[in-house]
Amino acid sequence: MVRPYELILKKRTGHELTTDEIEQWIQGVTDGSFTDAQSAALLMAILFRGMSDRETAALTLAMARSGRQVDLSSLPGIKVDKHSSGGVGDKTTLVVAPLVAAAGAPVAKLSGRALGHTGGTLDKLESIPGLRVELSLSEFLDVVREVGVAVASAGVDLAPADKKLYALRDATATVDSVPLIAASIMSKKLAGGADAFVLDVKVGEGAFLTREEDALALARTCVAVAHEAGRQAVAYLTSMDQPLGVAVGNALEVREAIETLQGGGPADLRELVLVLGAEMVRLAGVEADEGKARSLLERLLDSGEAAARFQRMIAAQGGDPEVVENPDLLPRAEVRLPVEAPRAGYVQAIATRELGLASMALGAGRDRPGAPIDLAVGLEVVRKVGERVEAGEPLAWIHARSEAQAEGIRARVAAAFRLGEAPVEPPPLIRQRVASGT
Amino acid sequence: MVRPYELILKKRTGHELTTDEIEQWIQGVTDGSFTDAQSAALLMAILFRGMSDRETAALTLAMARSGRQVDLSSLPGIKVDKHSSGGVGDKTTLVVAPLVAAAGAPVAKLSGRALGHTGGTLDKLESIPGLRVELSLSEFLDVVREVGVAVASAGVDLAPADKKLYALRDATATVDSVPLIAASIMSKKLAGGADAFVLDVKVGEGAFLTREEDALALARTCVAVAHEAGRQAVAYLTSMDQPLGVAVGNALEVREAIETLQGGGPADLRELVLVLGAEMVRLAGVEADEGKARSLLERLLDSGEAAARFQRMIAAQGGDPEVVENPDLLPRAEVRLPVEAPRAGYVQAIATRELGLASMALGAGRDRPGAPIDLAVGLEVVRKVGERVEAGEPLAWIHARSEAQAEGIRARVAAAFRLGEAPVEPPPLIRQRVASGT
Repeated sequence: MVRPYELILKKRTGHELTTDEIEQWIQGVTDGSFTDAQSAALLMAILFRGMSDRETAALTLAMARSGRQVDLSSLPGIKVDKHSSGGVGDKTTLVVAPLVAAAGAPVAKLSGRALGHTGGTLDKLESIPGLRVELSLSEFLDVVREVGVAVASAGVDLAPADKKLYALRDATATVDSVPLIAASIMSKKLAGGADAFVLDVKVGEGAFLTREEDALALARTCVAVAHEAGRQAVAYLTSMDQPLGVAVGNALEVREAIETLQGGGPADLRELVLVLGAEMVRLAGVEADEGKARSLLERLLDSGEAAARFQRMIAAQGGDPEVVENPDLLPRAEVRLPVEAPRAGYVQAIATRELGLASMALGAGRDRPGAPIDLAVGLEVVRKVGERVEAGEPLAWIHARSEAQAEGIRARVAAAFRLGEAPVEPPPLIRQRVASGT
Repeated sequence: MVRPYELILKKRTGHELTTDEIEQWIQGVTDGSFTDAQSAALLMAILFRGMSDRETAALTLAMARSGRQVDLSSLPGIKVDKHSSGGVGDKTTLVVAPLVAAAGAPVAKLSGRALGHTGGTLDKLESIPGLRVELSLSEFLDVVREVGVAVASAGVDLAPADKKLYALRDATATVDSVPLIAASIMSKKLAGGADAFVLDVKVGEGAFLTREEDALALARTCVAVAHEAGRQAVAYLTSMDQPLGVAVGNALEVREAIETLQGGGPADLRELVLVLGAEMVRLAGVEADEGKARSLLERLLDSGEAAARFQRMIAAQGGDPEVVENPDLLPRAEVRLPVEAPRAGYVQAIATRELGLASMALGAGRDRPGAPIDLAVGLEVVRKVGERVEAGEPLAWIHARSEAQAEGIRARVAAAFRLGEAPVEPPPLIRQRVASGT
């Protein structure tokens, strides 16, 4: 047994920790033999000294093993999971999960809830009348087995050591370390039991990582950790310099997801779904050729098969499948108020994080875990970067519970759009693909 | 109020903390609004980022003010305190305090106890029959007022925030930061109430700091902190590459201190006493000229006046003053066993820390606060670096409770002496003087 003191000193002085030492640390976090103060000091030393991919993988695996690990081996085939680092208007999972299932790859997706300026897939799904996301693990697996896809929380406390360390990091200003972020993400992913992962690492003003170099480092580390753990992973750096699609807010995003599943929807959302979906289909061994995988998925969207699969998933999780044919069954806000352009021009930039926070202020998000949210409210962002707008035309629509509430947020939403004379190129959606060895 | 998170982040990212922020931290350490984990993270960030002299001074003052501060203003003149960073055989305080008092400068000296390989002045004094070191503050001040000198603990819990932070540093591998060490030392010194300080920063194999550059940095920082706090300070870097004097162990060191106070004693101890004492006399405004100050002190040693002052202090603290004329009244170990040179040669080096640990193993020290110690046992180191020894001549004498105990430590003590053919120069005792602006 190495003493906590020696372990901290070793990292502090720039040495690599052994896998055994990292396992002892995480064991100590769990059993209390490592005090919070000792973990905090070690986290800060890691922030300054970094971690090798091997150390990060050891930390990830130790945290993944700190609680229950989901066993997906009873499901047929190669299970591919998808993860997004979080953004504004990111309803990709709602589309890609049933789509990939329709292509023949089982998707057992454990998801999270909204926090801060970003939304959460579980909250979005709960806007579908009757749908339950808090399934037991056996219910969850039954749905995947029956329908090919489930998106839920599955009642499993994945990687409890990560939860403890995250709370410490959050209190001690040690959150923004690439190896620690990667270990936090991947520990829950590995414990979730999939064989392969497609990671959507958001970068830009509305993402947690605003600088491309940081996002790239995170993507590379996550892919390397998966590789060290004997799993496959591909990461995409994708733009969060503007909201994804048009809708921001729970029921609004479900409506947009349904449109996309039916072959419509915003072009950027459809493109991202096709790119991530084709990668998932490839990793699942369903279709190795990228072009063919993409064509397959396009066909499933345009034929209605993807939407039908979503409908079956909704029914299997206790929701009203009618919602797919009749999205008006989703909760709707009483007031829909335009945010008009104060002048003509091209949209130069959108303060994406600010729009996420405005949506949260309306009630669509939460500033602390467990707080209630309003599923009906939100924003429609109808002018994106590079688009032309005339004075008085709407830039966005506010969906609110009252005129007063909508008016209260209007100036804030308007201020998030920067207009100018010069035409600008829209920011590229897909920035980079990162696979093992790249 | 700045949040702990913001404060940690600010230091972590390399910014200087304001005095107000540092005060809020130490307030938070005291009232619990800063958790141990947050303080540990901040300490680790400080270890990596360092602190300016202004920050270090702010931390020192905040810690000094976290508990009771001793008020020495009822004593006449400029009060000069002396501090040693700790070594083996360092009985300097026992000589220099009464000596400087005899020269006319009041000395109100709060001292500490033995820990690890280093001794403690309070333990040494307790080997004088009847002498009390645990005085109340008013008793302590009464003795200084009456005799001109007291050496005690004075029942005051100086700088409790430092005690808390030190315990955290000790658990989280954040002890060895120069600004944190300086703040820890100087917070207790400032709270002790003196106007000026002479600091004896030990450097070498038997000291806490083994590298001269580290000791110099610590000395410079301590002097700068005192200056920022509006007090005077001079530091000396002095050698701990061999024990100071001959005696190591409580009663043995008191005996050697008495010899030195009577004009005898080992040359290195006398020299250090004269250098530090002259500086204290100068800072106290008794004698500005260095040469005259030294002559004055030599006269006081050789005339017996310094010894007489020690005798008065002993009596005032309840001890038997007879001990000065008859040191055989001190506790004596039953066994005195020589450690003989295995071959002829010159002493090339002495593993000083190892001798400190050997003395501790005999019972003269303690490995944890509060453990009992044996005042009679210890070592006499009769051959120092550079001295010639013939095969079979004693290098040292072990004072022990039994033959078996002495035999048990003999090989360890012998191994601490490195003998060789080549004559070597003894290491210089006084390495450097550091005053404000140097």
